[in-house]
Amino acid sequence: MSEAIITEDRLLALATRALERGGMRGEEAALAARVLVLADLFGLRTHGISRIPQYLDRVRLGGIDARAEVQVERVAPALAMVDGRNGVGPLVGMRALEAALEGARAAGVGAAFARGSNHFGPIMPYALIAAGQGFATIIASNATTTIAPWGGKDTRLGNNPLGIGVPNPGGDPIILDMALSVAARAKIREQAARGEPIPEGWATDAEGHPTTDAAAALKGFLLPVGGHKGYGLAVMVDLFAGLLSGASYLTRVRAWDKEPGIAQDLGHVFVALDTAKLGLDLTGRMADFAAIIHGTPAADPARPVMLPGEREMQAMHRARRAGVRVAASDLAKLEALVAG
Amino acid sequence: MSEAIITEDRLLALATRALERGGMRGEEAALAARVLVLADLFGLRTHGISRIPQYLDRVRLGGIDARAEVQVERVAPALAMVDGRNGVGPLVGMRALEAALEGARAAGVGAAFARGSNHFGPIMPYALIAAGQGFATIIASNATTTIAPWGGKDTRLGNNPLGIGVPNPGGDPIILDMALSVAARAKIREQAARGEPIPEGWATDAEGHPTTDAAAALKGFLLPVGGHKGYGLAVMVDLFAGLLSGASYLTRVRAWDKEPGIAQDLGHVFVALDTAKLGLDLTGRMADFAAIIHGTPAADPARPVMLPGEREMQAMHRARRAGVRVAASDLAKLEALVAG
Repeated sequence: MSEAIITEDRLLALATRALERGGMRGEEAALAARVLVLADLFGLRTHGISRIPQYLDRVRLGGIDARAEVQVERVAPALAMVDGRNGVGPLVGMRALEAALEGARAAGVGAAFARGSNHFGPIMPYALIAAGQGFATIIASNATTTIAPWGGKDTRLGNNPLGIGVPNPGGDPIILDMALSVAARAKIREQAARGEPIPEGWATDAEGHPTTDAAAALKGFLLPVGGHKGYGLAVMVDLFAGLLSGASYLTRVRAWDKEPGIAQDLGHVFVALDTAKLGLDLTGRMADFAAIIHGTPAADPARPVMLPGEREMQAMHRARRAGVRVAASDLAKLEALVAG
Repeated sequence: MSEAIITEDRLLALATRALERGGMRGEEAALAARVLVLADLFGLRTHGISRIPQYLDRVRLGGIDARAEVQVERVAPALAMVDGRNGVGPLVGMRALEAALEGARAAGVGAAFARGSNHFGPIMPYALIAAGQGFATIIASNATTTIAPWGGKDTRLGNNPLGIGVPNPGGDPIILDMALSVAARAKIREQAARGEPIPEGWATDAEGHPTTDAAAALKGFLLPVGGHKGYGLAVMVDLFAGLLSGASYLTRVRAWDKEPGIAQDLGHVFVALDTAKLGLDLTGRMADFAAIIHGTPAADPARPVMLPGEREMQAMHRARRAGVRVAASDLAKLEALVAG
């Protein structure tokens, strides 16, 4: 795959312009582009600017409203309900994040629930932005169904992403951003394309039987991490992000890939906590915590023990020094959208 | 193992009296006993009244202060910092839960961080009590180290419990209460006692190599669910429950089993959310959600698909109808504490 290198500023300008050409208002396009470009800085390409053509395809089909006016209702001093009105996901996500931070500034902790949303990118950018302002976060979303309940043989749950971030005034924040399946569906798709098998434990076939056949797995469903534990987490994330937000949940979420012209009504939850109010020496404690983890003897000396998100933070620093690496084809598509 | 059956009220009175005889004040003993007796109602015996003799042994050794005056400092309208002052864990937990609920009543969402605490029982009782008043919760604690960081070969992380609960006005709440290892250390201890091997993937030996030898596993460490994902969750739970609370974290937590006479300084985090403020038909939505999950065709028709915590809620109803089943030896120990 041919690669291109571009500065963060140029990529941000290009992504913003592409979203504007797709119908978004300027400031809102910049906000959404920021989330996606951060994903590319982290090396999370599948959740970065490569999504813009797909978002705009759905805009053209009427599945997403590029000009939606996201509504934020503050229902209590620390609690906001956000209606995305079927807007572009990362815009809805950023509005909900802002609402949660506003609550946390006022009350120490704040939460925002978003409904009427769409794919909102990876969670790490939101957690990074919040951490930069001193906020710890718990963020989650529901998703199109790809996972069967534990002991069941029908997809009823999304591979719901869950992110948790803690600021570190003396260094990079520690941020976990994970989905609840053992492996991503994209990885199974790659193996199927190569005609290669998948490891045991990744997925089942359509009948719910474990399989190593990648093609059969694509017709089946993903297995959750830790069996019933990952299943339980996927349920709880959907309850918070989907049910409590007033969005759709479980099988009521519409599949963007099968019905791109229909509103998905995804839901997200953002909880933010103002660490400035805790009265702690956060710098010293975070340095000590990181040192204890980094000091663990490695099973393989060539692979030192890392903190959650550490690899992505390193990639971000590298990208800011030496430029963002993106697939040349993804960049060409963006340029075509801007020129088109 | 011989079993005894006792009513909830009698067990609660007995547990309260035992804790009082151990030095706790009456009302506080009742609060702590409530958490532990609920554990027995759920069938979670390892975290129920069987812990009382152990707690009181530590009180006698000076490791726990039965007469500690737990301090609650409200640092922001929705945020409280709790200092357990090395009190009995479930008492500190209940005080922190109350503080989180108070914040949520005032601001929509509330949080409490507790430091200077001890083993606080299972999470499910706290989530159930909160759900009964309409609050959704996210609750976690750190613990004595038993897990190695992913790629490392030394225990630096606890098998930190994480619980999430959502109220259901028309039925039982949905509550997940899980630790982050594939299997509990108690299960490995059982296999070792029987001289039987453990399944692959549960644990490593002291050198960090995967093992199926239960005795070797007891000298080694537990493996987290989903490999790097469970490791990441264990890190984030310790950051929230230990680091942000002002408690000890990672290897700075003292081991209650190895140093029973020393204060552990465990930490907990409680986040509560007032569902009454969300403006939703929670009854209807929860019934619909449960019906979708329960309607999943089961892989094994004899084992229908269940929701997180459903088994424990059923056990609780059974125990309230027909009495609580406890180990006769655990009951005898309580009676001895009360008589002694």
